[in-house]
Amino acid sequence: MIHDTYYTVISGTGRYIPSQIVKNEAFLDSEFFNASGERIPKSNDEIIRKFQQITEIEERRYVEDDMVTSDIGYYAAEAAVISAGIDKESLDYIIVAHNFGDVLHANKKTDLVPSLAARIKYKLGIQNPYTIAYDLPFGCPGWVQGLIQADYYIKSGDAKKILVIGAETLSRISDPHDIDSMIYSDGAGAVVVEAVQQESRVGVLAHKTRSDTLQHAHLLNMGVSYNPDYKDDTLFLKMEGRKLYEYALTTVPQLLSECLDKADVSLQQIKKVLIHQANAKMDDAILSRLFKLLNVPEIPEHIMPMTIATLGNNSVATVPILLDKLLRGEFEHHRVSKGDHVVFASVGAGMNVNAVVYKMP
Amino acid sequence: MIHDTYYTVISGTGRYIPSQIVKNEAFLDSEFFNASGERIPKSNDEIIRKFQQITEIEERRYVEDDMVTSDIGYYAAEAAVISAGIDKESLDYIIVAHNFGDVLHANKKTDLVPSLAARIKYKLGIQNPYTIAYDLPFGCPGWVQGLIQADYYIKSGDAKKILVIGAETLSRISDPHDIDSMIYSDGAGAVVVEAVQQESRVGVLAHKTRSDTLQHAHLLNMGVSYNPDYKDDTLFLKMEGRKLYEYALTTVPQLLSECLDKADVSLQQIKKVLIHQANAKMDDAILSRLFKLLNVPEIPEHIMPMTIATLGNNSVATVPILLDKLLRGEFEHHRVSKGDHVVFASVGAGMNVNAVVYKMP
Repeated sequence: MIHDTYYTVISGTGRYIPSQIVKNEAFLDSEFFNASGERIPKSNDEIIRKFQQITEIEERRYVEDDMVTSDIGYYAAEAAVISAGIDKESLDYIIVAHNFGDVLHANKKTDLVPSLAARIKYKLGIQNPYTIAYDLPFGCPGWVQGLIQADYYIKSGDAKKILVIGAETLSRISDPHDIDSMIYSDGAGAVVVEAVQQESRVGVLAHKTRSDTLQHAHLLNMGVSYNPDYKDDTLFLKMEGRKLYEYALTTVPQLLSECLDKADVSLQQIKKVLIHQANAKMDDAILSRLFKLLNVPEIPEHIMPMTIATLGNNSVATVPILLDKLLRGEFEHHRVSKGDHVVFASVGAGMNVNAVVYKMP
Repeated sequence: MIHDTYYTVISGTGRYIPSQIVKNEAFLDSEFFNASGERIPKSNDEIIRKFQQITEIEERRYVEDDMVTSDIGYYAAEAAVISAGIDKESLDYIIVAHNFGDVLHANKKTDLVPSLAARIKYKLGIQNPYTIAYDLPFGCPGWVQGLIQADYYIKSGDAKKILVIGAETLSRISDPHDIDSMIYSDGAGAVVVEAVQQESRVGVLAHKTRSDTLQHAHLLNMGVSYNPDYKDDTLFLKMEGRKLYEYALTTVPQLLSECLDKADVSLQQIKKVLIHQANAKMDDAILSRLFKLLNVPEIPEHIMPMTIATLGNNSVATVPILLDKLLRGEFEHHRVSKGDHVVFASVGAGMNVNAVVYKMP
């Protein structure tokens, strides 16, 4: 007798893209300082041109002034529940990946009590007390890690339907005097995953995660403004961009390779790579390294759909937004169908890297 | 052929109790206001006497000025690793329950990037990149929920050794003008759990969790000081004590009863109840209701070890500290031995309630 196994399959997706579009030109009057508190000697025009060249970011989205992370997480969640066509009362878990809690526009203080998952469950109007709602701070890879945790609950047989949300408002922790802040953007994405019991493999085939803290724990951290005359000691997100770039290029292809091995899926079988986007050139370099590492000479033309040019880096929201756009057929050159293999991957604060190999149902 | 199952067994415990003892008398000069911003008309002497009568809190611990939550979490973690006698490099996961991140003494701002788990892994000097480190904000029940999540990883066969930490510095988010702040205390507790493969049941036998958000999401939340003339808009922890009391009395005995059922263990078999402590009278009432609910007429004399009188409410740290003291034989009337059944239970922000039935290895 062959035992059927539970597989984790995505049955619905949703997103929330804030309406405030902030173009690169919006930073022409900014006063930029470096980490040592010195005014950057280049013109803003030059700074922005170079920034766009490297990152490919042309514009980003900022959340509406009267909204917070749990609001946009709720909108994405609601869309995912509708798209899955499930009864929200049947959810076993609500997992919310974020890293800064709710940060008000006027009062720049992190607030995560109650948890954002509790706030989103409240907004969804779910009555069922057994829908367990918790938060998952894990840097940008938080949403992918939420999917991985959901897979454990489903594989165990304890859970049948789980909502995994990634929501972030990086605009609220952006130092206006730090060039890196031009990367940051706001957004939310969500999926509903469901347990499918069958013999043949489907959905989440394998996952792999690493946390590098000994040398890399502080590559992303919170600090005061680079402007030494800034009005107060508000904490902003700070990053060591150069080291972060090197870290990602070393670890992400390696982990992706291990995850493909674990899934027993070849790189040639991978139809799409949905990867966290902080810098388009970095993603290109990661992809090249992965193909080189696995001795696959040619990278297929349309394997990595990109959103960074117009959506910037919206942290935990990037991968679920990519998936939502992909499944709704909104990328011109990107289509997936039943049986296709897709990879989700992310890298971020911790430092953490993770990946999931997923087979389309 | 009978398949052996993996069981989650606690192999080591540790704690950190801050050295600053703050007695009730320390609040004699406080200026207390109610939620409407009116000065409370009673004398502080009377307020404190009544407070002590209800909660049984005589003193609490505040973390040293130069330390933050991840520091005390690290000390508890180190003690747990030593007590388990394991190689820290063999850890598969580090799970850190907290709700406010690291909050500096001087700059009252929540900071959770990188995650506290990443910071603690860094402080432990762990090199292994596959020790996955993540945070779990889930109100006071966060540590118990971390133990539950660890059980999923171990039961799946993917993880063999996991560090589960609960650390909190409630003193850093205490409104000096709010009577409820007298409840809050600081501390950290940690355990190492390991996978044991055997036929007969041991360790975590069953667990159960509920999240009540529709009516109760905001019983614990963040707000500005009750003192309308307070110097700034710093966010403090606020609670609706009366509603919280009623909520706990209704849901905790119910969930404990369901968890015992799930574990197929009777209340009479339970040797110790290690429960979150925010108010001693509330814990007594919960215990009475549980025994009444299950028609057990007599409550054994020494079933619920208490720490609240001297340690106050240290949130996620309470249950692992209780366990550490119990296993080190530090409670006069409390001893456990192999085969004994123990219950871990907690209730807090979310609102969340959870419980674990545990059989001593």
